[in-house]
Amino acid sequence: MSVVDSLEKLEQVVREFKELDETMTHYSDILGLAGWDQQVMAPKKGKAYFAKVRGTLSTELFRLGTSDRMGELLNALTQPDVQQHLEESVKAAVREYKRSYDKNKKIPEKLHKEFTIHTANARTVWEEARAENNFEKFRPTLERTVELVRQYAELYGYEKHPYDALLDDYEPGLTVEQLDRIFSKLRERTVQLLERIRNSGNEPRDVFEGNFDVAQQEKFNLHLLPSLGYDLEAGRLDVTAHPFAITINVGDVRITTRYFEDDPKSSLFATIHEAGHALYEQGVNPDYEGSVISGGVSLGIHESQSRFLENMVGRSEAFWERYLADYKNFFPGKFDNVSVRDFYRSVNIVQPSFIRVEADELTYNLHIMIRYEIEKGLVEGTLEVKDLPRLWNEKMREYLGVEPPTDTLGVLQDVHWSYGNFGYFPTYSLGNLYAAQIRRTILKQFPDFYDIIRAGEFSKIREWLRENIHQYGSLYQPSELIERVTGEPLNPDYLVDYFEEKYSDVYGL
Amino acid sequence: MSVVDSLEKLEQVVREFKELDETMTHYSDILGLAGWDQQVMAPKKGKAYFAKVRGTLSTELFRLGTSDRMGELLNALTQPDVQQHLEESVKAAVREYKRSYDKNKKIPEKLHKEFTIHTANARTVWEEARAENNFEKFRPTLERTVELVRQYAELYGYEKHPYDALLDDYEPGLTVEQLDRIFSKLRERTVQLLERIRNSGNEPRDVFEGNFDVAQQEKFNLHLLPSLGYDLEAGRLDVTAHPFAITINVGDVRITTRYFEDDPKSSLFATIHEAGHALYEQGVNPDYEGSVISGGVSLGIHESQSRFLENMVGRSEAFWERYLADYKNFFPGKFDNVSVRDFYRSVNIVQPSFIRVEADELTYNLHIMIRYEIEKGLVEGTLEVKDLPRLWNEKMREYLGVEPPTDTLGVLQDVHWSYGNFGYFPTYSLGNLYAAQIRRTILKQFPDFYDIIRAGEFSKIREWLRENIHQYGSLYQPSELIERVTGEPLNPDYLVDYFEEKYSDVYGL
Repeated sequence: MSVVDSLEKLEQVVREFKELDETMTHYSDILGLAGWDQQVMAPKKGKAYFAKVRGTLSTELFRLGTSDRMGELLNALTQPDVQQHLEESVKAAVREYKRSYDKNKKIPEKLHKEFTIHTANARTVWEEARAENNFEKFRPTLERTVELVRQYAELYGYEKHPYDALLDDYEPGLTVEQLDRIFSKLRERTVQLLERIRNSGNEPRDVFEGNFDVAQQEKFNLHLLPSLGYDLEAGRLDVTAHPFAITINVGDVRITTRYFEDDPKSSLFATIHEAGHALYEQGVNPDYEGSVISGGVSLGIHESQSRFLENMVGRSEAFWERYLADYKNFFPGKFDNVSVRDFYRSVNIVQPSFIRVEADELTYNLHIMIRYEIEKGLVEGTLEVKDLPRLWNEKMREYLGVEPPTDTLGVLQDVHWSYGNFGYFPTYSLGNLYAAQIRRTILKQFPDFYDIIRAGEFSKIREWLRENIHQYGSLYQPSELIERVTGEPLNPDYLVDYFEEKYSDVYGL
Repeated sequence: MSVVDSLEKLEQVVREFKELDETMTHYSDILGLAGWDQQVMAPKKGKAYFAKVRGTLSTELFRLGTSDRMGELLNALTQPDVQQHLEESVKAAVREYKRSYDKNKKIPEKLHKEFTIHTANARTVWEEARAENNFEKFRPTLERTVELVRQYAELYGYEKHPYDALLDDYEPGLTVEQLDRIFSKLRERTVQLLERIRNSGNEPRDVFEGNFDVAQQEKFNLHLLPSLGYDLEAGRLDVTAHPFAITINVGDVRITTRYFEDDPKSSLFATIHEAGHALYEQGVNPDYEGSVISGGVSLGIHESQSRFLENMVGRSEAFWERYLADYKNFFPGKFDNVSVRDFYRSVNIVQPSFIRVEADELTYNLHIMIRYEIEKGLVEGTLEVKDLPRLWNEKMREYLGVEPPTDTLGVLQDVHWSYGNFGYFPTYSLGNLYAAQIRRTILKQFPDFYDIIRAGEFSKIREWLRENIHQYGSLYQPSELIERVTGEPLNPDYLVDYFEEKYSDVYGL
């Protein structure tokens, strides 16, 4: 052994690495809590100052992760003759820290600082531009963002495509080559299916009429959550403009939703969606607490858990065979003439629309593909920011058959580009793809899957998810995990098969 | 200049000191937020782990405050020829860090660690002992706490009395000599006054009958807070078992209260009390944000602000001339035959009782004195822990004329000793004493003080408090501040005069 020349020395290095891992995880945990608080609880006058507090802690966390000592420890612990002596969990933590250490070390401090300041300001510019339906106002800022993002991609390095370097930030190992292949098939079959749905002449009736008391909506969510396996003693449900899930630790995974009196579906499915994320994090092996591997492994895998619960469970007919009677009790008189089938069909209406976050399960991926294609073109330099409004609308017309009347309802709708988050969007569709592939495996394990859902025994499925996915946290890489769980690499067929099956039923195709 | 040998060097030292001050303040702010969250929001299953997160950050904060670099900076900045060049705010921050640096440096790490672990465990032992009414169970633990506390006092050092070393932690500069003198006069006149009240035969009627809807109680508190000057956009009101105020930053000062359906006074006066603390912190000069001096200067001064608002404003007849009609509106039918005078007299009933936190304004200080005398005796070694239950009951009988039937209602009632907080209790009475002295100054400035209260124009008084006390944060030491504000050192006469005046009125003495 070159760097670690005795087992005793190795033990010492591992101990020091674990301490650093724990310290950094603790910093990250308290920053997570602070982030939650500022979105959910903090009064408005304290927020500007508190952003500085979070900045100080983030800087310290960054410093720890790129410190010389971290470099030395990682160097020692990645030697092949050392790796063989490491526990699996330590090896995984080394892998995680190594990836961010290597990436962060490649970014000069000056660039990092410019990017941080630029994107902080960009957020404000974007908000104004969106409010004023004025893309030109955002254009110069976005142009600079794209320049900076391209610099990042070059500095990170890549084998085939600069966008690969960015994708890796959100879904380790994901490449343009894979995405092009997957999305091409998914787009083709989605567009075909959409056409058949349009022509079916069999549109479900919208069963949600009038207003629904917000307090009752909340009560129903709190009624539903425990039966999905979400532990309210290890979490909370609160209200924010944009629903999210956040992990403070394995025993404290919080979710939020939002309430609209005239659209109870919104809070309902947002709650189920976020509960899907939360089940993942509540289910991580508690032995991993205090380590970087105690969180879900990637955005894509995470999204698979939320989409599976929201769409494949929560929008199934079996689910509402169990819960519609309960739901009716919370809203007396609202669904008197609504059957389970009516309700099920209503929550699965397909309707191409302008806004991604309001899209139905089928058209959602088309929204993602538009963003993916634009991001890829900007990063490789074949598209220019100034052309985005036109390109956006063209693609909307081509894939979805609708064209937004304003940029506010079009190219300006998402916050992600203002943050400089290029490479993030594809993970949303990836989640749907993983979810369908996992669903197929579950159906093989539980041929009576929908009977289980119908009986309100989702806990059985949850146990399987915990056993096969949740408990591992970030122990395995996403591609490794999906192969372990389903026996094969990501295969887009399962999602399109699932769509065919569901919409044939809903629309009587 | 020996250490800082040029103005340029001085500027650099000051800059570095300010950066360290800011970093430490940010750590302290986020720890404050985490403390709030764990008491108010966190689900129970996440708390054990999160205690470790807080431990990591606290340790880092302690390390920064006792680091060699801090020592060097403080050494440079306390040279007399350097001090003359410092801004007042930097000088005050140096004073604050110097005090804790010097104290912390005197405590060997081994002792600090033992104290931390011992008191963490002691809390649990105390809880069980109190629940089981079993002082013997707590005795050995408390004996060790006293031994440790005595070691701290010796290591800190003192001029006249070891307890002085402990008092200084909570109220810089306070001594046994001062307290003995103050408490002796206060005790004598309080006991006399209590005797006259007992013999007055003029007991006010309790006007709070039946149950009061908790939601309405909360609504009234939220109605009242802004008119007291508490800015709800720079704070929040939540619910906890033990009410408290906590500062996240000047723009985010949160308070809590608790609700009992059969005792609306509890939430009402707790809210006013905590608002008093919060006005202090919301009123600090925003230029001090990011510095240790942005918080109130001592527990005693802090308590003066809460007691002033709760008792001298909130329990005045003038206050209810303004607010009783509002209060009646929130509880229709509850106070139909209650006059302002009835209400005022009711919230000022004097009734010796066993529990400090439920004590009335007059007898409260007698509870404090009992604790003070016991702590002083334990620290100087003239009392023994094993004798506490007997001593406690003797003193209760002597000062208050009542004897608790159990130790749970007596010597075991407070959490403070389990934490090892010796020297804390006197600051509660000190708050009352400061408050009365400040009230006298205000009465000189505003002879129409009670007309102002009666007109609901407390904001005028609040402005005065901000101008004369709040804005300074920790700029001045408590004794310095009280002299600046009132023109003389602490004088216990003002509190007893105030008591005479109030209870002569309430009890028609």
